[in-house]
Amino acid sequence: MTWLDLPPDSLFGTSNLPYGVFSAGDRPQSGPRVGVRIGDAVLDLAQVLDDPVFGEPSLNAFMAQGRTRWNEVRARITESLTAARHRRVVQAALYPLSGARLHLPFTPGDYADFFGNEYHAANAGRIFRPGAEPLAPNWKYLPVGYHGRSGTIVVSGTPVTRPRGQRKVPQDSAPEFGPSRRLDFEAEVGFVLGTGSPLGTPVAVGEFADHVFGAFLLNDWSARDLQAWESTPLGPFLAKSFATSISPWIVPLDALEHARISPPPRDPEPLPYLADVDKWGLDLALEVRLNGHVVARPPFATMYWTPAQMLAHLTVNGASTRTGDLYASGTVSGPDRSQRGCLLELSWGGAEPVTLADGSVRTFLLDADEVTITATAPGASGARIGFGEVTGQILPPVAS
Amino acid sequence: MTWLDLPPDSLFGTSNLPYGVFSAGDRPQSGPRVGVRIGDAVLDLAQVLDDPVFGEPSLNAFMAQGRTRWNEVRARITESLTAARHRRVVQAALYPLSGARLHLPFTPGDYADFFGNEYHAANAGRIFRPGAEPLAPNWKYLPVGYHGRSGTIVVSGTPVTRPRGQRKVPQDSAPEFGPSRRLDFEAEVGFVLGTGSPLGTPVAVGEFADHVFGAFLLNDWSARDLQAWESTPLGPFLAKSFATSISPWIVPLDALEHARISPPPRDPEPLPYLADVDKWGLDLALEVRLNGHVVARPPFATMYWTPAQMLAHLTVNGASTRTGDLYASGTVSGPDRSQRGCLLELSWGGAEPVTLADGSVRTFLLDADEVTITATAPGASGARIGFGEVTGQILPPVAS
Repeated sequence: MTWLDLPPDSLFGTSNLPYGVFSAGDRPQSGPRVGVRIGDAVLDLAQVLDDPVFGEPSLNAFMAQGRTRWNEVRARITESLTAARHRRVVQAALYPLSGARLHLPFTPGDYADFFGNEYHAANAGRIFRPGAEPLAPNWKYLPVGYHGRSGTIVVSGTPVTRPRGQRKVPQDSAPEFGPSRRLDFEAEVGFVLGTGSPLGTPVAVGEFADHVFGAFLLNDWSARDLQAWESTPLGPFLAKSFATSISPWIVPLDALEHARISPPPRDPEPLPYLADVDKWGLDLALEVRLNGHVVARPPFATMYWTPAQMLAHLTVNGASTRTGDLYASGTVSGPDRSQRGCLLELSWGGAEPVTLADGSVRTFLLDADEVTITATAPGASGARIGFGEVTGQILPPVAS
Repeated sequence: MTWLDLPPDSLFGTSNLPYGVFSAGDRPQSGPRVGVRIGDAVLDLAQVLDDPVFGEPSLNAFMAQGRTRWNEVRARITESLTAARHRRVVQAALYPLSGARLHLPFTPGDYADFFGNEYHAANAGRIFRPGAEPLAPNWKYLPVGYHGRSGTIVVSGTPVTRPRGQRKVPQDSAPEFGPSRRLDFEAEVGFVLGTGSPLGTPVAVGEFADHVFGAFLLNDWSARDLQAWESTPLGPFLAKSFATSISPWIVPLDALEHARISPPPRDPEPLPYLADVDKWGLDLALEVRLNGHVVARPPFATMYWTPAQMLAHLTVNGASTRTGDLYASGTVSGPDRSQRGCLLELSWGGAEPVTLADGSVRTFLLDADEVTITATAPGASGARIGFGEVTGQILPPVAS
């Protein structure tokens, strides 16, 4: 039990304790530094733990210390928040979230984005390649993925300018250049590596928790018209590279203990290097709001490939990893229409407009639209823990 | 005229002056630091120029200073090597290349790889998609590209372990897992950004030389069997991410003044944002040796898209760039068989084995094979300048 005055249904109780980077301007030491969210406050770790990594403007130095240290710090924070003798010191290190600015929580290394949800992959196949098999022949054998642009990863709240680019509808003989007309969100879950792995040394499925520090929410903004035109044969490029938004709080894997579930059955059986070792399906409940109205509730439990399998695949060719490397699940969708994690699927490629609760209608995003993704997960004793949110508003395109 | 004793046909005379990062163990100040290659020696810049950026183990800090400073430093180095009064100081700062170790010259940010050579793209299309149009419909409208893994970029000389992964031949019903059987090189030219550009601000074709610091050679090692199986629909991933080798010397754009040529005629005319402003075709002569035997002489002059167009395309959607971001041309090939820049093309997908000068035969790379790519370019007064080389030897796969 914490001595803090937290509502019993808080999504940020002592069993969550996600890490982020914050600044608060009311004290001399006000630069961006590492904090832990507890209730509606941020605990300034540099004030309560004697380690310079917590004074850094990114989680990277702390994450690089490795799993034993992550456990130790989590235990120390838990003790600080539960043992009454720490109360005075800890209270002096708590900042109200409302007065804090949240920054990109880590310095991104390489960014890989997967395509690991069967409902999304099949829907995208039906929409982009009508008449063909929805899933490519490789899909059930490996977690399909590609590298994204890590320099355009931004923290929740950063506005997203509508990208311009080439787009071509099949009826036209040549592409046009202009602002994307089919701008979309993609509700995904991301994973960040705390400790890397050397060149030539694959990370086995069972080593997932030794390397991955935590999970967060990710919106892989996508310009579907640019994507359809540019992606042959090397995959998406400018359709995705203009911005990727992530939530400011990194939920440690230890906080997800009660969310772990068996992944869905796989047929065919994955190759041995992808065989499940521990149970790393995750029962996360995502919710997507567009201008405040819920448009989807994608269930992460439906993911075909687990994050442990994704990391094993990413490195099986000997590719090295580094602290700060991240990868994302791909759009999370479920079997019901209300569970689809992007407008491409929700509006079936634009053919079936979506009506929001205020009566407005969307196929793709309009300027000024605001997309917010949240998620919760089972915590201890029937409680739930929260991921916070990743949000972003669309700004009109820059004049050329 | 330099006071140095350089052969008149040196590829590293005073009109070249490429930058790199070297270490030499015979002095107290022996850590990796910035050097300039002159003849068969390295000039230790920290010893002759009073700026801490030259004591850094990467070019990034110097590159970030911008084009005006690049010009100033180049002028200072030229003066040091030509004015006799500097001779004593400069000679004390010269290290024989034979005793120096060359490091990765810059810390890579995002890495984009293009597909900008028409001969290569058409050959690859014919081999991977027989019966279909060789070039995808988008190819002549935009420089097709994708993001690669920057954490596995290694400097020339680093051995490359044969990757393992999933591969499937059409006759089989399911993929197998094992070492790649179709391991290939790709002879490319890379470009590194010295100064970045903010989110939302495209870099125009005419701003190329304000951002790009220099050029180098790049070998985009490729596992063709992994690539053929994994690439639908999101492009190459593990087939390329196990290693990318780059040459240790970055040739400044100013040294390429005499190599600049008009690119080949384009039909259709590129969209306005891709219209040529300055002449940024480059007459570089590449040469690829396999175990010492020349297997190809790819002419960079055949590139359909220029590096200035590639950067304009990369950023037209508003994507930001940073110091150390790099991009590569894609495989360089020419109309003749002897000009094809990868074994996929040279052996026509394995159907036409290549016979080396020693009588040995290759379709793809064998363990212990060594691939070396070199290039030269026209310099002043009929002389030539060199890029040095990017080399790598294939090691057998790691046991599972």
